[in-house]
Amino acid sequence: MKKGLIIINTGNGKGKTTAALGVAFRALGHGFNVCMVQFIKGSWKYGELEAAKKFDNFTLLPMGKGFVNLGAKEPDKEDVKLARETLEKGKEAIFSEKYKIVILDEINYALTYKLIDVKQVLEILTDKPKDVHVILTGRDADKFPELINVADLVTEMREIKHPYRKGITAQRGIEF
Amino acid sequence: MKKGLIIINTGNGKGKTTAALGVAFRALGHGFNVCMVQFIKGSWKYGELEAAKKFDNFTLLPMGKGFVNLGAKEPDKEDVKLARETLEKGKEAIFSEKYKIVILDEINYALTYKLIDVKQVLEILTDKPKDVHVILTGRDADKFPELINVADLVTEMREIKHPYRKGITAQRGIEF
Repeated sequence: MKKGLIIINTGNGKGKTTAALGVAFRALGHGFNVCMVQFIKGSWKYGELEAAKKFDNFTLLPMGKGFVNLGAKEPDKEDVKLARETLEKGKEAIFSEKYKIVILDEINYALTYKLIDVKQVLEILTDKPKDVHVILTGRDADKFPELINVADLVTEMREIKHPYRKGITAQRGIEF
Repeated sequence: MKKGLIIINTGNGKGKTTAALGVAFRALGHGFNVCMVQFIKGSWKYGELEAAKKFDNFTLLPMGKGFVNLGAKEPDKEDVKLARETLEKGKEAIFSEKYKIVILDEINYALTYKLIDVKQVLEILTDKPKDVHVILTGRDADKFPELINVADLVTEMREIKHPYRKGITAQRGIEF
């Protein structure tokens, strides 16, 4: 049996978005169209944005205007609006069948901060065109067992050791 | 403090090599030179090989001729020779200072199967030029606490759910 997979990269470690980028890299090499939708503003940095330009089959959809205040106790109305618009973009990309892979990058944060409803996401995943692979990234996917339930491949990136604990700062080209 | 990081991607889950590819993608976008050295023959597939061609700053060093019989109880002499030659290539790449990042892909397998000695790897890592980042991938890095000890960033990719268990076969562009 072959089908478009629902893939979740979660956990407290590095590599969730990075592994999604790696999957994209491979798929782009095959000539497949890949779309990556951004659920956290500013999460994409110079490195991936520049590298993506090499591939005319890689579409990046950044989040719209506005500022998402993830620290707030109550989700801000503007943030909710922005996150819903982003989910709509992701949904359109998935249902357009133009893309072999659609990456919903950091969508788990939008779920955790209650900017979007897990039911809507589940609906998209269960109704999606069967050949489209969808990758969801972000921490705390385990808070949404219904998501884990519909997923085919779930990987937890677990931090064993982190350089910041040793006083080493973020590195250009490695982390951004 | 900034320094070239020693990064280990390990665990039984997907995403070890894939996340290393994602790091490469970002670094290539910055215009940095990246070198990836292969410790398991045939582990690189069409997708990444094709995508890599887009970047003249991405050097892939596949394993030399020969066949590595990883299932054997005793390491085969030819396999040992091949793995040592590969380690030598990796060492040269690291010490050449031509590359910002050197990926020793699946090196942990060569260690587990005793094709190369962990002491040699440790020597390379401790003596390496300080600005060069080195990424080691493969399962079972935890069998080598001395490696974990010198590493700056260690991430375990842990399998939570895998599609093969549901009878879904490998997918072109996702897995190879």
